[in-house]
Amino acid sequence: MEKAFTMDQTWLQCMNCGHRADLLEERKFRCPECGGLYDIEHNFKRLPVDLGDDSSGRKWSFKSLSSRYFRELFQARAGGAFNSFKPECVSGIWRYKEWIMPYLPEGQIVTLHEGNVPIVPAGKNLQAWVGDVELYIIMEGMTPTGSFKDFGGTVMMSIAKAAGIKAVCCASTGDTSAMAAAYAAAAGLACVVILPRGKVTPVQLAQPLVHGARVITLPGSFDDCMRVMQELVREYGIYPANSLNPSRIEGHQATVFQIAQRFNWNLPDWISVPVGNGSNCSSVGKALRLMKKFGFQAPTKILGCQSTAADPLSFPWFGGITLEKWKADYSPIKVGETSATAARIGDPVSRDKVMREILASHGAMQTAAERELNEAVAICGKDGHNVCPQTGMALAGVRNALKCGQIKAGERVIVVSTATGLKFGESAAANLKSNIINATDCKISTVAKIMEL
Amino acid sequence: MEKAFTMDQTWLQCMNCGHRADLLEERKFRCPECGGLYDIEHNFKRLPVDLGDDSSGRKWSFKSLSSRYFRELFQARAGGAFNSFKPECVSGIWRYKEWIMPYLPEGQIVTLHEGNVPIVPAGKNLQAWVGDVELYIIMEGMTPTGSFKDFGGTVMMSIAKAAGIKAVCCASTGDTSAMAAAYAAAAGLACVVILPRGKVTPVQLAQPLVHGARVITLPGSFDDCMRVMQELVREYGIYPANSLNPSRIEGHQATVFQIAQRFNWNLPDWISVPVGNGSNCSSVGKALRLMKKFGFQAPTKILGCQSTAADPLSFPWFGGITLEKWKADYSPIKVGETSATAARIGDPVSRDKVMREILASHGAMQTAAERELNEAVAICGKDGHNVCPQTGMALAGVRNALKCGQIKAGERVIVVSTATGLKFGESAAANLKSNIINATDCKISTVAKIMEL
Repeated sequence: MEKAFTMDQTWLQCMNCGHRADLLEERKFRCPECGGLYDIEHNFKRLPVDLGDDSSGRKWSFKSLSSRYFRELFQARAGGAFNSFKPECVSGIWRYKEWIMPYLPEGQIVTLHEGNVPIVPAGKNLQAWVGDVELYIIMEGMTPTGSFKDFGGTVMMSIAKAAGIKAVCCASTGDTSAMAAAYAAAAGLACVVILPRGKVTPVQLAQPLVHGARVITLPGSFDDCMRVMQELVREYGIYPANSLNPSRIEGHQATVFQIAQRFNWNLPDWISVPVGNGSNCSSVGKALRLMKKFGFQAPTKILGCQSTAADPLSFPWFGGITLEKWKADYSPIKVGETSATAARIGDPVSRDKVMREILASHGAMQTAAERELNEAVAICGKDGHNVCPQTGMALAGVRNALKCGQIKAGERVIVVSTATGLKFGESAAANLKSNIINATDCKISTVAKIMEL
Repeated sequence: MEKAFTMDQTWLQCMNCGHRADLLEERKFRCPECGGLYDIEHNFKRLPVDLGDDSSGRKWSFKSLSSRYFRELFQARAGGAFNSFKPECVSGIWRYKEWIMPYLPEGQIVTLHEGNVPIVPAGKNLQAWVGDVELYIIMEGMTPTGSFKDFGGTVMMSIAKAAGIKAVCCASTGDTSAMAAAYAAAAGLACVVILPRGKVTPVQLAQPLVHGARVITLPGSFDDCMRVMQELVREYGIYPANSLNPSRIEGHQATVFQIAQRFNWNLPDWISVPVGNGSNCSSVGKALRLMKKFGFQAPTKILGCQSTAADPLSFPWFGGITLEKWKADYSPIKVGETSATAARIGDPVSRDKVMREILASHGAMQTAAERELNEAVAICGKDGHNVCPQTGMALAGVRNALKCGQIKAGERVIVVSTATGLKFGESAAANLKSNIINATDCKISTVAKIMEL
């Protein structure tokens, strides 16, 4: 099989020591020199050669590969989505192909038409609760598998297929296993999900099973499953679909590109994201740096939000911390209970990227107490929006950042909603039992009395 | 309060006797003369007067209110969605405002940015299973509450608010209560959901509770709940959010308009819809008739699909049946068990509209056996798509219609997927337990052996 692209075009580069590796050959996604995380890098200078003409027939030289060129290209694709089934037109991720995976041949893209998600203004109740900011939510739960993971999944599975991978593997009780199973199915690859026996709910099992994944249960804890998965990657070359895989980050950048395009290429003051393993901070930061490279104004600061039950990356914020000091102060923590289960992580895989991007954007970290994040979810519900507890974390984080002056009154803030509340319905409902009224009989007069008619 | 529109502009009209009523005054939605269902009618002749100029500054006269005028208007809104938060730009329903609720002032629209849903080509597995048709699925589960009901909900709740309603009510264990609660929240109205105590799952309870509805449970059956709800409508003037309310049908028409626009205004040979109470057949047929009125080619036939467990509208199909004969032969049935619970209805509310539209479109009815509809869901899953059992019914219906020659080889067919499979995950997973493999210990060698590495 001819390689989809060469290492001159797109490659892996260790964020610590600069070691390079081939994205299509790599299976372990840890630098063999220093153990660091990989970034994906592209040689954008070769873009005009490969892009050819745009739809208007104009020729573009490298010099003219400006912000205007991309604005027009992406707008044409969005507006032209009605006449084409090309990935660049049907997917809200691949619309930005030149910024995300420019040298992957179009025919190798695996897409479920993901990522054209609404960016909604805060409802009346939420606005009053958060305070004086111009607040929007990007609803990334409105995707094929119901979470933001699909933004990265479409890119990861396209690369896996192009790399000749036959099976992907993950240990996840939630959104990652759902995404991996669905996109593996779409790509025609096998998928194995490793789970702790007796410790997952039918809802958590449902999505991998529906998409034909093989589910292997172990008589142990979730940590045992993660350890076995990592050993399979190291010792057997199994392809990991988890957060280590940097192809996912490339796709998640579309969050920023969509926000930019939605506001006519004026980026907001802040983007607030929940932090679990840290892929959101990583991708938002990478995307902002890329847009600056192409001549856009990108003054956006990143607000990384954790729950107080799992806040290994939080620290007293004086504004003057350095990356070295933050890294030196970091240590994994033992996590407590929280309804934000997807972010219940004491030692985030992408912590180095989170620190790099928060500081590069002049952003900040925030925490949300359990009561606050649940309150945020309930208040969104009363505006008609059904969001997950992790979204609650990012919303409460904005409120707290405003209270303590990190966010200034009147600033524009976009919150990333990472999953639909449908996946967390039972826990949300458990807090709301007081709204259930039991009628003593089936008479209309009884019900009318309850309804105060 | 000044009325949002007058009866000269938009009104209710009994589909049997022609009796007219005021959409903003009506509360019972049954013709007082003959008990018939209402259609909503609009005086489209007044459109140019109210529309003003289009964005290009051209003046349109009634004579020029042609298919081209609308194509350009709707395309401009879709392409311009990036610069505006107007309902016509953010909602895939209100994009077609002039065809759906032309005289409602824009400021009275209640929207959750619903309805910009993907229309995906059938995956490899599904295509092989269904056979030789050009097959697409419109994914109407990718909406704020996870089902197609939002298409109608945004219109119904806008009308309810414009009518000065304070509270809406429904008896529903599923998608309708979720939609009613979410849109009532968005509109700032109260919502009451009536449910049988002890007979609904936590998942079914979750959505109404999350959106702040009051849930009243009765010590009886679901039929008791429906009876009480209908009495509240009749005797206390409570506003019904159920299928009787014809405002919902207006919004559901956007299914057809989106399909048309997606294929550059070339409508398909068939649209296949699941039939429960019948709102999908009603709205698809109404939309096709409207498009013909405005000069479009609309040769699409409607395929109405039921499960064999609940098929009150099915009958041996000889092609020559008349509306009178079909109506005369109709009788309610006792339904059996089916995983397509949302269509488990023995006496569909909108049956008269279903019959009218199936015959007007020269369409057909089909049934799917329980095994077939579950198989269709599982096969979609293996292509990466997570659909509900009702979608399975509509997919299996296409397969059966192709087998018996109702649908011809090579015809283009769009299937309406009415909800995300996320809401039905547990039942789907129950059929797939054989894909779970229990490892005897946590050793990597054990897992590697299972994975045949």
